Amino acid sequence: MTMPVITLLTDFGNSDEYVGLMKGVILSITPSAVIVDITHQIDPQDIIQAAYTIKSSYRYFPENTVHLIVVDPGVGGERQIIAIKIKGHIFIAPDNGILTLICDEGKIESIIRIDNSTLFLKSVSHTFHGRDIIAPVGAHIAKGVPLKTIGPEIGLPDVVRLKDLRAAISQTSELLGTIISIDRFGNLITNIDGKQLNDYVRCGGNEIPQFWIGEKAVNGLSTAYVNVDQQCPLAIIGSRGYLEIAVNSGSAQRYFNVNKGDMVKVTI
Amino acid sequence: MTMPVITLLTDFGNSDEYVGLMKGVILSITPSAVIVDITHQIDPQDIIQAAYTIKSSYRYFPENTVHLIVVDPGVGGERQIIAIKIKGHIFIAPDNGILTLICDEGKIESIIRIDNSTLFLKSVSHTFHGRDIIAPVGAHIAKGVPLKTIGPEIGLPDVVRLKDLRAAISQTSELLGTIISIDRFGNLITNIDGKQLNDYVRCGGNEIPQFWIGEKAVNGLSTAYVNVDQQCPLAIIGSRGYLEIAVNSGSAQRYFNVNKGDMVKVTI
Amino acid sequence: MTMPVITLLTDFGNSDEYVGLMKGVILSITPSAVIVDITHQIDPQDIIQAAYTIKSSYRYFPENTVHLIVVDPGVGGERQIIAIKIKGHIFIAPDNGILTLICDEGKIESIIRIDNSTLFLKSVSHTFHGRDIIAPVGAHIAKGVPLKTIGPEIGLPDVVRLKDLRAAISQTSELLGTIISIDRFGNLITNIDGKQLNDYVRCGGNEIPQFWIGEKAVNGLSTAYVNVDQQCPLAIIGSRGYLEIAVNSGSAQRYFNVNKGDMVKVTI
Repeated sequence: MTMPVITLLTDFGNSDEYVGLMKGVILSITPSAVIVDITHQIDPQDIIQAAYTIKSSYRYFPENTVHLIVVDPGVGGERQIIAIKIKGHIFIAPDNGILTLICDEGKIESIIRIDNSTLFLKSVSHTFHGRDIIAPVGAHIAKGVPLKTIGPEIGLPDVVRLKDLRAAISQTSELLGTIISIDRFGNLITNIDGKQLNDYVRCGGNEIPQFWIGEKAVNGLSTAYVNVDQQCPLAIIGSRGYLEIAVNSGSAQRYFNVNKGDMVKVTI
Repeated sequence: MTMPVITLLTDFGNSDEYVGLMKGVILSITPSAVIVDITHQIDPQDIIQAAYTIKSSYRYFPENTVHLIVVDPGVGGERQIIAIKIKGHIFIAPDNGILTLICDEGKIESIIRIDNSTLFLKSVSHTFHGRDIIAPVGAHIAKGVPLKTIGPEIGLPDVVRLKDLRAAISQTSELLGTIISIDRFGNLITNIDGKQLNDYVRCGGNEIPQFWIGEKAVNGLSTAYVNVDQQCPLAIIGSRGYLEIAVNSGSAQRYFNVNKGDMVKVTI
Repeated sequence: MTMPVITLLTDFGNSDEYVGLMKGVILSITPSAVIVDITHQIDPQDIIQAAYTIKSSYRYFPENTVHLIVVDPGVGGERQIIAIKIKGHIFIAPDNGILTLICDEGKIESIIRIDNSTLFLKSVSHTFHGRDIIAPVGAHIAKGVPLKTIGPEIGLPDVVRLKDLRAAISQTSELLGTIISIDRFGNLITNIDGKQLNDYVRCGGNEIPQFWIGEKAVNGLSTAYVNVDQQCPLAIIGSRGYLEIAVNSGSAQRYFNVNKGDMVKVTI
């Protein structure tokens, strides 16, 4: 018996029955599915946070995993639902930009606009396509239904993609990023990826970079939290592969008094 | 290998080990069980919220699913534990009214008062029957132990059922409901079901209904969140099949400044 | 097909993708693993709370369960990662004292310092050994890789163990304990175990004990929450086997206005 893996990434939270219902629908179609929660605590309707989370997460799952991503402010409206196959993984999500970073991951094998309603639940609500469309289609694909049967192939230009997601160099030669997530420990996770930071530092003559959060700065990059004293701040390429600002055994969120969406500036 | 599905619905929250222990007990008895959390965030000891949640959820799971519902303020006292089989689903719960709405779902196949202690954990605490009785009995049933071996059959009149759970028409011909849950998005989920609302509107000559929360009103029923402008309120039959008051891309809880248990009034 | 059980106990919370990534890594190595969350809401870096939680939990899981415990303030530093086999269960954790109480559980079958990097992820970060080392090693062991291949055997004196974890008798003959956890219901879970309390009461001539939280006292031990009136406090040996201070249908945390770490004193 094969046990296909299906992941769930949503903004549903853990207080309601919504995630459980998606799992019930999946198991009704594919009883052997192994369902893994990536997280359901994406901030309500924060497509950018979800885009970064799925990009950083999918590669830790086995090939052929089906990833269902449901952050869906446009449910019930005109937006489409799409499936993208890339590097042996399948992603199913509303076509609202949430797969922007996945589209950049490499050679795309297939993009489908999902329209085969014989694979949906019999009664499709206007408010919960995660349960009524995305879960059952994902379960069918995990079971082996070919991608081409779920809808017509479309091209990359047909996919909604977000602009200005990535950190960029300003006119005054600073590297400007944004805090995308703040984790449970208060670590500030930015959209400045390790390679981008590396290139920036090299272009600056390999001087020690400074990381600015508001008026406060951290000097240089650490390789482990324990490189600095307890309760001291540090900058590090975190487990996602992106720049994080942290405090050893403490909370950078409290230390710097910042919020998601605030700017992080790198200078040399 | 069959993989029986067992769902869990409790007020245990996610911060403690209680849910994990129930799963350990289940897997010790039925290693192939697939265990799904419906939610553990029922407000502590809120039997009514749990009653509505299981009623809205069970049908999305495969037939023969065993549903374990543990909201149990009377644990250690005189209350019984019962199993009800209905429409191919089995529900196990304290006999405290939590299965009131399940009892109304249709033809009941069997109701059992659980008393076969050979199926319980060897040592039964006075504080955690979810772990010591409900989990092991549920696991045995999922494994194929016949219902009749877990205790004597009882009748529907023997089951504790809550009164006045449903919305009702007032003497002044208003349809009066209650907010049963407020979900993560701030949607206000009421106990006014879609059919009941429909009947009320039809009796009122199919005029456009008004939905009152305190002094504020919403006019007419929408079919999708996106029917109204962002940050505007709407009334909709939600994914549960019940009237919900929502705000497009916002929180109705904040918009109306209301709490669970508050009244929603429909007029024509 | 065997379905080995792996449990996870961490301080990662449920808001980030960290737990999901550990599961992805495990399933990539051992697709048939059944993964159970004990809890991820250990307070950040609270090794003592985790030590008590795993001690109270493991015995409810099947033999040969692999328990992964990740509360790891020293990640990236000099601390080791160890595996301990005891009573047919395997525990993998940072060597930071978190397994102190497990070491006391009985005859230890094996203790290993994990150093076989061929079992790790190819790229090991300095910030997330749960994903990069503990998850893959645990998955390999669950799959049947012999313990002796993961690293050298070490002795009990080599293991970091915390001192003064247990409640103790003061010079004035009071039994002094600490609140280790406060659960979702507001129950105050102490480090005074049932046997220890029993011995103390017996030594005191079997008089009725008094339980002090600050200036307030509870008289005598109850056997069920419902032994006292609603909203009244009680002392009880809880489902963990430890003394708990509770309020029937209410919150002892609110009633006594206390915090984790506060003292509970027993007198006769």
